[in-house]
Amino acid sequence: MVGKSQIKFIKSLQQKKYRIQHGMFVVEGIKTVRELLDSNFEAHKVYAINNNLVSAEQVNVELVSEADLKRISNLKNPNKVLGVFKFPLVKPIEEQGWILALDDVRDPGNMGTIIRLCDWFGVRQLVCSENTVDCFNPKVLQATMGSITRVNIVYTDLLQFIKSSELSVYGTFMNGENVHVTKMPEKGILVMGNEANGISKEIADLVNHKITIPQFGGQKTESLNVATATAIFLNEIRRSEK
Amino acid sequence: MVGKSQIKFIKSLQQKKYRIQHGMFVVEGIKTVRELLDSNFEAHKVYAINNNLVSAEQVNVELVSEADLKRISNLKNPNKVLGVFKFPLVKPIEEQGWILALDDVRDPGNMGTIIRLCDWFGVRQLVCSENTVDCFNPKVLQATMGSITRVNIVYTDLLQFIKSSELSVYGTFMNGENVHVTKMPEKGILVMGNEANGISKEIADLVNHKITIPQFGGQKTESLNVATATAIFLNEIRRSEK
Repeated sequence: MVGKSQIKFIKSLQQKKYRIQHGMFVVEGIKTVRELLDSNFEAHKVYAINNNLVSAEQVNVELVSEADLKRISNLKNPNKVLGVFKFPLVKPIEEQGWILALDDVRDPGNMGTIIRLCDWFGVRQLVCSENTVDCFNPKVLQATMGSITRVNIVYTDLLQFIKSSELSVYGTFMNGENVHVTKMPEKGILVMGNEANGISKEIADLVNHKITIPQFGGQKTESLNVATATAIFLNEIRRSEK
Repeated sequence: MVGKSQIKFIKSLQQKKYRIQHGMFVVEGIKTVRELLDSNFEAHKVYAINNNLVSAEQVNVELVSEADLKRISNLKNPNKVLGVFKFPLVKPIEEQGWILALDDVRDPGNMGTIIRLCDWFGVRQLVCSENTVDCFNPKVLQATMGSITRVNIVYTDLLQFIKSSELSVYGTFMNGENVHVTKMPEKGILVMGNEANGISKEIADLVNHKITIPQFGGQKTESLNVATATAIFLNEIRRSEK
């Protein structure tokens, strides 16, 4: 039986301010919870409807009824396990390899997809402006599929970070150089901007290389979604290294 | 004042069976409605909260209150204009250029993003298996942003279509040839599969060239989302033509 105060606590973690206050977040689903348990993330508590779902040696597990799981879950159809985890230790940003920088990306689905892309393409460092959507937002976590354990995500003053970095800064613009012909170095910062407004003026001024994905379908399509554009740019970065 | 029967009719078009029965679908938002009005799509009726939003010469416009718009809308925050449009005439598939084939893609957001990608990369023909999500689903239309007017979308028996085609068939698999080194021809069929299960067995047997996006982040990431993978493959197809 999950008590009222526990339900209230877990539900509160759906909001960023309480996540920050407690330094904890919630993930749901067997697969993602297991991935987090197998990583460096530290579990606070796991709620499971069945003894065999999570190894009790790893963590403080409480068996709960399906009705109780529904009470603490954020999903319409809760998926057997819910885990409360502590925020990971954020490592300092290292100036090696490619760093992806997000300037005010707002959509949780895009953010989750971008984290998964970083993981696929071996981009270990994701630096986000402070107005970028919180990576521990439940919708972000649903889209990352455990990739969040393998990418170091830092929220900081992006303008100051870029100013103080010695790396070349690549930014995506509608009128930049065709990324198919741009020679990419082995390291750098790639900046992706806000869904509606792109890269902010202050940060655009710091971009050394403006690049673009060429369009083949006439001039009508407005732009690519930021997550699909990130997919193409990260693929191009890795392609150039070959 | 929008009458009860009109509300019922418009609301019914949120379901596929009524869309098929009436041969009509709903789009919302000024921008997308305008794009459809400026295309070959034929409007049945447009509901707008303001006279200046849509040129009345183009179409049968009914001015409605915000409260009425809320009654017929599928959105939490309706966006000034709602249009009911007739299904477009589906053109026969032409065996020229690249054809994208979707084998049981289920997620409306993915479908919408894929249509937008076809538009960007000039892929004019999208052939879908009959179990692929309906392109006139409201969530698909929300993600396409008007691109649907520039891509010919055909639902058919995909297996038969591929069997009867003379084009080379490229399919995406975890263990295929690295797409960075695959030489792409000027035309062909690219098959993308279901979110959970990939390309079905019967269609996989017809694939001439198995290709894959190389992974750089270790072996843990399971797979890329089908929309982001499509972004990368379409970019690679156009890249090879250069």
